[in-house]
Amino acid sequence: MTTQIEQARTGGRPTTEMVQAVEHEPLDPAALCRLVAEGRAVVLTNTARRPAGACAIGTGLRTKVNANIGTSHDYADPARELRKLAIAENAGADTVMDLSTGGDIAAIRRTIIEHARIPVGTVPIYSAGADAVARGQTVTDMTADDMLRAVRSHVADGVTFVTVHCGVTRSVIRTLDSGKRICGIVSRGGTFLAQWIRRTGQENPLFERFDELIGIAREFDATLSLGDGLRPGCLADSMDAAQVHELMVLGELRDRAFAAGVQVIIEGPGHVPIGQIEAQVKLEKELCHGAPFYVLGPLVTDVAPGYDHITSAIGGAIAAAAGADFLCYVTPAEHLSLPDDEQVRQGVVAARIAAHAGDLGKGLPGAADWDAEMSRLRRKRDWKGQLLRCLDPTVARAVREHGRPADEEVCSMCGKYCVFKLADEGGK
Amino acid sequence: MTTQIEQARTGGRPTTEMVQAVEHEPLDPAALCRLVAEGRAVVLTNTARRPAGACAIGTGLRTKVNANIGTSHDYADPARELRKLAIAENAGADTVMDLSTGGDIAAIRRTIIEHARIPVGTVPIYSAGADAVARGQTVTDMTADDMLRAVRSHVADGVTFVTVHCGVTRSVIRTLDSGKRICGIVSRGGTFLAQWIRRTGQENPLFERFDELIGIAREFDATLSLGDGLRPGCLADSMDAAQVHELMVLGELRDRAFAAGVQVIIEGPGHVPIGQIEAQVKLEKELCHGAPFYVLGPLVTDVAPGYDHITSAIGGAIAAAAGADFLCYVTPAEHLSLPDDEQVRQGVVAARIAAHAGDLGKGLPGAADWDAEMSRLRRKRDWKGQLLRCLDPTVARAVREHGRPADEEVCSMCGKYCVFKLADEGGK
Repeated sequence: MTTQIEQARTGGRPTTEMVQAVEHEPLDPAALCRLVAEGRAVVLTNTARRPAGACAIGTGLRTKVNANIGTSHDYADPARELRKLAIAENAGADTVMDLSTGGDIAAIRRTIIEHARIPVGTVPIYSAGADAVARGQTVTDMTADDMLRAVRSHVADGVTFVTVHCGVTRSVIRTLDSGKRICGIVSRGGTFLAQWIRRTGQENPLFERFDELIGIAREFDATLSLGDGLRPGCLADSMDAAQVHELMVLGELRDRAFAAGVQVIIEGPGHVPIGQIEAQVKLEKELCHGAPFYVLGPLVTDVAPGYDHITSAIGGAIAAAAGADFLCYVTPAEHLSLPDDEQVRQGVVAARIAAHAGDLGKGLPGAADWDAEMSRLRRKRDWKGQLLRCLDPTVARAVREHGRPADEEVCSMCGKYCVFKLADEGGK
Repeated sequence: MTTQIEQARTGGRPTTEMVQAVEHEPLDPAALCRLVAEGRAVVLTNTARRPAGACAIGTGLRTKVNANIGTSHDYADPARELRKLAIAENAGADTVMDLSTGGDIAAIRRTIIEHARIPVGTVPIYSAGADAVARGQTVTDMTADDMLRAVRSHVADGVTFVTVHCGVTRSVIRTLDSGKRICGIVSRGGTFLAQWIRRTGQENPLFERFDELIGIAREFDATLSLGDGLRPGCLADSMDAAQVHELMVLGELRDRAFAAGVQVIIEGPGHVPIGQIEAQVKLEKELCHGAPFYVLGPLVTDVAPGYDHITSAIGGAIAAAAGADFLCYVTPAEHLSLPDDEQVRQGVVAARIAAHAGDLGKGLPGAADWDAEMSRLRRKRDWKGQLLRCLDPTVARAVREHGRPADEEVCSMCGKYCVFKLADEGGK
């Protein structure tokens, strides 16, 4: 069998997945096919279990939104996570990542994949670490084989993209140690690996045995999401030598995977001051040769726990406008607790706002049509139309009903002084 | 008596208000004094009734946040607006504007000024228009004298800054008419004046009799906030000839007021695509010779009613980072209804996040210290400290309690896999 990239490279004929993936995109299958051949876009798929909804991520495509779900030690109920999956899908998430670390992780993953209508991603090292803990060991007792086995097992289950923190190398950790971070490493996978390396003295198996990872991804035509284990955990730590060093390593690994016909996306921060966001996106595009950039946030301030869906919507919109392709949502619970249903919903909506604002900034063909349509409905005081076509009809309707006007033609803020009503009555 | 500007110009000695205003600012009274003398900062005050809390706005100062409160036809209860005033103050608003258009507008204004601990602004033409309607006439039956009288009456009550839509001139309206906006005029004051001009054929009294406005502001040392009656009401209308033409007029008027020793701020949009925000800020700073820029939002998409506190936090952060000085909050109720207490609170918090992110982007001295402090507390897993020092302790505490962890040392998302706990236990 050949992968999406190989098919794109050799025949130039779009795959079934590509045709499906551009259904709601401003480009045609042939254009997506060229972008995949160049490694500037990926099509999330898996030959073991093709996801119900195809999704392509990268240049020329709508900015996508991922919602993280999954159990923790404190909240290990699979039913709760299935509910979050449905909420994320209904709120418009393009992908979900199952980041479960509590309960029967393998069973939960399989259930989520089974129920998901959108592509599912995971971080295999979480389950490898948790398995070690379940055996009464610690996270750093994982073997290199455990790590590779976890990746294979996730991908064989039908996961379409796996986060692998291949860039947390001994050399990158030396760079980290020579710096002065406030928060050190804040990626869980990055922490597992850094501690494993420190304890064993050996090189990161996900780096050293990268060809095996390529082999697993090739076998199932899955996508490698090269994780940023050294992403900054606060503004002060942003864009330091450790972060940039890791990104350079990821750029080299991207080239190897790409050459082998395996799709790659690159993960990025995190916590970034507003003035550095564009530079970070440009740097990724340069060092990783145009590979799709998948950012977590970025959060533009550290001071607003409880509102990190907003701090990350600010950063996400700027990142997307600068060329980031894929936004991982952040919920209001970030830094405080595992999100509940409503927080998942809020996180998806905030990230979708950021993604759309970013698409407008990118000049994505057709993106402004939605805004123009909403504006025409607003001008006509077509409330039914506005409440039907807006990003979240349920919430918009509830807000309007809550502050109900006496006159149905206007809203309760301006009432008879509604500028559109005045214009209609007074001419212009 | 002499105004803040005159005192700054002649003696170069900071006024009492300046000394008070820099208490929580990264500059000293002498520096503020120089900025006021150059018209690049204003100190909100009123000799009839000096506000309890002094507030300076402009270059070198923290980005400020205004909360709009006030009655409408549908919700005309003064008690409700006093409650919103207290909520806005407690949530950290730097100023409030009373935009009442329902009930006994003058009485409500006076009550708000009496209770406010922060400077109060208003839009006098609202009450002039509402008075005409109360007399059984229409808004366009206001006389020129009515408009000027309203301004004097508001300022004499102790309002520190008044929005006056002086730039909606006959010539600017011709420019508007030659364009093709979707939403036309969306400023209420702008609509009142445009319709008045169309009906009477006369020039905008706030433009033609601008010297009288200067006189009123001088008399009470109040600040003129030159309103953008032609601000775009949707992304498609942004930065058109009409908007820029009005801004050019405001730049000229700013020079006249400044020469007469009257403080001026310039109001800006509105709805602006993410890629135009920086250009709009630079344009204002250029055309208005460094006058403080007061933006409403800007909203970066038209499609998300119910979430315009988020769409505007994105735009506000970018605007502030580019040099905007003063953000008018937008609540989740925008475009749908008059905001209630909780929506006011959410609006203030979202705008404060944007303002702080903008201050980081501006490189405001000391702004990053707060983030660094929060990050050190986070690294130490000092939950008490984090919940005390964050932007909204009440909400952050509630989110943490709602998703309570079994182990108080961590949060319920990562639990025993908390990266900081692992680092403390595993070294680094």
